[in-house]
Amino acid sequence: MSLVVVGSMAFDALETPFGKTDKIVGGAATYISLSSSYFVKPVNVVSVVGGDFDQDHIALMHERNISTEGVQVKENEKSFFWSGRYFNDMNSRETLATELNVLGDFDPIIPDSYQGCEYLMLGNLAPQVQKTVIERLSSRPKLIVMDTMNFWMDIALDDLKETLKLVDVLSINDEEARQLSGDYSLVKAAKKIMAMGPKFLIIKKGEHGALLFHEEKVFFAPALPLEEVFDPTGAGDTFAGGFIGYLASTKDISFESMKRAVIYGSAMASFCVEKFGTERLKNLSQEEIDARVQQFVNLVAFDTVLQ
Amino acid sequence: MSLVVVGSMAFDALETPFGKTDKIVGGAATYISLSSSYFVKPVNVVSVVGGDFDQDHIALMHERNISTEGVQVKENEKSFFWSGRYFNDMNSRETLATELNVLGDFDPIIPDSYQGCEYLMLGNLAPQVQKTVIERLSSRPKLIVMDTMNFWMDIALDDLKETLKLVDVLSINDEEARQLSGDYSLVKAAKKIMAMGPKFLIIKKGEHGALLFHEEKVFFAPALPLEEVFDPTGAGDTFAGGFIGYLASTKDISFESMKRAVIYGSAMASFCVEKFGTERLKNLSQEEIDARVQQFVNLVAFDTVLQ
Repeated sequence: MSLVVVGSMAFDALETPFGKTDKIVGGAATYISLSSSYFVKPVNVVSVVGGDFDQDHIALMHERNISTEGVQVKENEKSFFWSGRYFNDMNSRETLATELNVLGDFDPIIPDSYQGCEYLMLGNLAPQVQKTVIERLSSRPKLIVMDTMNFWMDIALDDLKETLKLVDVLSINDEEARQLSGDYSLVKAAKKIMAMGPKFLIIKKGEHGALLFHEEKVFFAPALPLEEVFDPTGAGDTFAGGFIGYLASTKDISFESMKRAVIYGSAMASFCVEKFGTERLKNLSQEEIDARVQQFVNLVAFDTVLQ
Repeated sequence: MSLVVVGSMAFDALETPFGKTDKIVGGAATYISLSSSYFVKPVNVVSVVGGDFDQDHIALMHERNISTEGVQVKENEKSFFWSGRYFNDMNSRETLATELNVLGDFDPIIPDSYQGCEYLMLGNLAPQVQKTVIERLSSRPKLIVMDTMNFWMDIALDDLKETLKLVDVLSINDEEARQLSGDYSLVKAAKKIMAMGPKFLIIKKGEHGALLFHEEKVFFAPALPLEEVFDPTGAGDTFAGGFIGYLASTKDISFESMKRAVIYGSAMASFCVEKFGTERLKNLSQEEIDARVQQFVNLVAFDTVLQ
């Protein structure tokens, strides 16, 4: 059940209607690894940080059995930084600053101890870097899940399409699915995108839930209706971490298992948005996670007796 | 299981990305009565039309055991007319023309044969008219379901709040719930709206499904992911018709039964959008409806075995 997670480890500065933060720890690999650590041990991270990165956070990762052997530290450089502001509806945001720093020339290194991993989660990064990671693994993992963003569709579409051919599951949001396929209908978009390579497609719709497509089948997982979404940063990565973490823990990558994995991913994401940054993901109990999953079960459960 | 349906019977002229129609039969009572006629007989309609209304459509209603005894015909006037254009995403539209005509001074008449009805569906109309219908019933129905629109929140909010005190279930869309409550969070909005009177609240989210609230409970029904939404006109009314029709047919107005009713309503709405106007609702078979409901069951079904 070995899992390798690739992605950024970064600083974010956030503004939401509920307040603002100074630089706090963020990044795709941060959220994915924390989320998946509730399901599998160890979680092996491939990333790069500067000398300014938060050592307490590294210590927390180690406590949660997350290996940082594959995290390069460039002492004289700065970590990736992103700053953004969310609007009142929490569904839209604007980027205030992006400083690539160490991510600008990221050349991923796979430690020997990570080789032979069965599960690979490619967090949002340049698609060429994601592809390099696959190429540097000595054997192909049993399952490769990829997350990406509209940003790469805009500036590196050819690379993205090359990487897409190599993965099993793609996880993107609804607008990205429309952009990538050129189709407004998500059903049509899913068919086109699965023809590009991935056998499974997850379309995340934020507060409106997520769809899982495979061949002619579709599964829908709701989002939990919440009183407040405090900070949506990292929700998609937390979803991905719960998704692949659940699959790795069960060693079952059937469509039926993936349905449950989508529910687990959604449950983990519902925790993430309750507080700023990674705060809510640092100390969850198994009881909390099980209770949250049960809420998802109850949310859509109805007695199916027909007339 | 007697059901009374109040609402407009009208002409619509529609433009969608798939084409445009001349004046075709529409109106809330039209869609509600057609949809509910697959569950209960007779469906008793209270409405008003002009001398120009489509007699073939009246004949179709009669064939489907829909009584039009409560439909006033004003021979020398014209039927209500609405014209609108849908944008590419089908989630937004603009009104091109609204001609109230006979609806301008609608004074609803309840035939004696409708008295004693157990189920009342108040389709979208001026809230004062909806209230008048309740007052003109000799005994309070077992269940009153009300649909309304942002239009009435803008121009007749006090009347709307008075009528709200008298109903059991309110069915509105997400933007309307936000407007009525002043809260962006639908969970908070639901609490405020239920404090205004209705013990049950349905929030329709179009392609994103529907939420049913009651006390501290919430149920989510997805919308079926469709390849094409051909014409969304009447989908909300068709939903309402399936919802109350199912409840009337089962005589069970518990929360558990309402969950199933939301699924039946969603299934009926998913037929409605497949063709222009009421076309798809004229000749459904029980087998088609059962198969569609089963698609909803399958869409969210997963084996709930926890880890």
